[in-house]
Amino acid sequence: MSDDGLRASAPRAVVLVSGGLDSATTLALARERGFACYALSVDYGQRHRAELDAARRVASAGGAVEHRVMRVDLAGIGGSALTDAAIAVPTTPSSGIPVTYVPARNTVMLSLALGWAEVLGAAAIFVGVNAIDYSGYPDCRPEYVAAFETLARLATKAGVEGRGLSIEAPLIAWSKATVIAEGTRLGVNYRETVSCYQADEAGAACGGCDACRIRREGFLAAGIADPTRYAGAG
Amino acid sequence: MSDDGLRASAPRAVVLVSGGLDSATTLALARERGFACYALSVDYGQRHRAELDAARRVASAGGAVEHRVMRVDLAGIGGSALTDAAIAVPTTPSSGIPVTYVPARNTVMLSLALGWAEVLGAAAIFVGVNAIDYSGYPDCRPEYVAAFETLARLATKAGVEGRGLSIEAPLIAWSKATVIAEGTRLGVNYRETVSCYQADEAGAACGGCDACRIRREGFLAAGIADPTRYAGAG
Repeated sequence: MSDDGLRASAPRAVVLVSGGLDSATTLALARERGFACYALSVDYGQRHRAELDAARRVASAGGAVEHRVMRVDLAGIGGSALTDAAIAVPTTPSSGIPVTYVPARNTVMLSLALGWAEVLGAAAIFVGVNAIDYSGYPDCRPEYVAAFETLARLATKAGVEGRGLSIEAPLIAWSKATVIAEGTRLGVNYRETVSCYQADEAGAACGGCDACRIRREGFLAAGIADPTRYAGAG
Repeated sequence: MSDDGLRASAPRAVVLVSGGLDSATTLALARERGFACYALSVDYGQRHRAELDAARRVASAGGAVEHRVMRVDLAGIGGSALTDAAIAVPTTPSSGIPVTYVPARNTVMLSLALGWAEVLGAAAIFVGVNAIDYSGYPDCRPEYVAAFETLARLATKAGVEGRGLSIEAPLIAWSKATVIAEGTRLGVNYRETVSCYQADEAGAACGGCDACRIRREGFLAAGIADPTRYAGAG
């Protein structure tokens, strides 16, 4: 069967792709499980565009059937260092819920994925949330993902008509080192991904924020060379 | 105490205001219950702008502290007669889930409300969903609203920190006649609201679509004169 033929008969999944390490790995895992993947990136008013550029590269390299970017203006409600220029991105580890938490971000992104999943007749939505490295974010916990799956079944034609729609968060209990090891096994090119909260225009990482620190420690723990492009490095 | 002083001490609520009859009534009920109301309208790529113009009038007349319009491009995913020009709006009653159903619309709107509620420290989100007149929409049922409340508590700082956040759907079990009778008691001016799926630029209703039919029958059943501006009428 041709590659197109295989895709046409495969169950569909919407995969949230931010351009970071976790979502690139999640896309690879969804493909490994046989899904025809529809990549969705949400432009929620990020400070920099490097993340969306990385998302396009990740979707393309990861074999997505289609990639869409939906814009929603979360910056308008403020409340996060990631969308509000008045709040500084911290460079030291924080306790509790960090200021980089974007209010309702995962709920908004999953809702948009749900709408597209319904139109596509998709059987699953994949999201790269991780409860271990980001334990301060309430919407990265297993009980949150389970609650969204319950909601999704009640909210949709697919649910009402008895067809399943599952929310898959394969990384949720993995360490960053496990994510990196699994992604490497599946051929993910992490040099194309951007995790940094304040990457420059070209996607080079600052090396100092929480996201950079967690990522660097992940490569170290996995025993895999860190391919990240750091600003000012060669 | 001044009106400003009362507002400052009142608990806050985000109220989803579409510009229709139900959301105007919901706003009036939230105000009656003592909330300082923050009106949120979501521009999800509607075919006409009359609905958003009506939302501005409703928010203002209903005493909202602030009114915001957030744009999200649900038209990009298609699948509904309300956002997809290729699907006709029906003029006869339909059975099952109607083609005017917008995939995940209430989930997306409630998610945006949740983000703003979190930033505001709001105690409640009010939404004018109604299970009686729109029984074909899966995301207008009580079990859907309850599932979103569960999700909201798991998704947010407020929930994690033990402060409550409730999802209020006061109209959910009311007939359209009851909605109209209650709103009339609270002084809602229904002439300013637009329910029609295909209102003209000036907000005049077609008189023929499902939404117009349900609205007209509601005024009739409530024994209240229908103030709706119909296209072609005086």
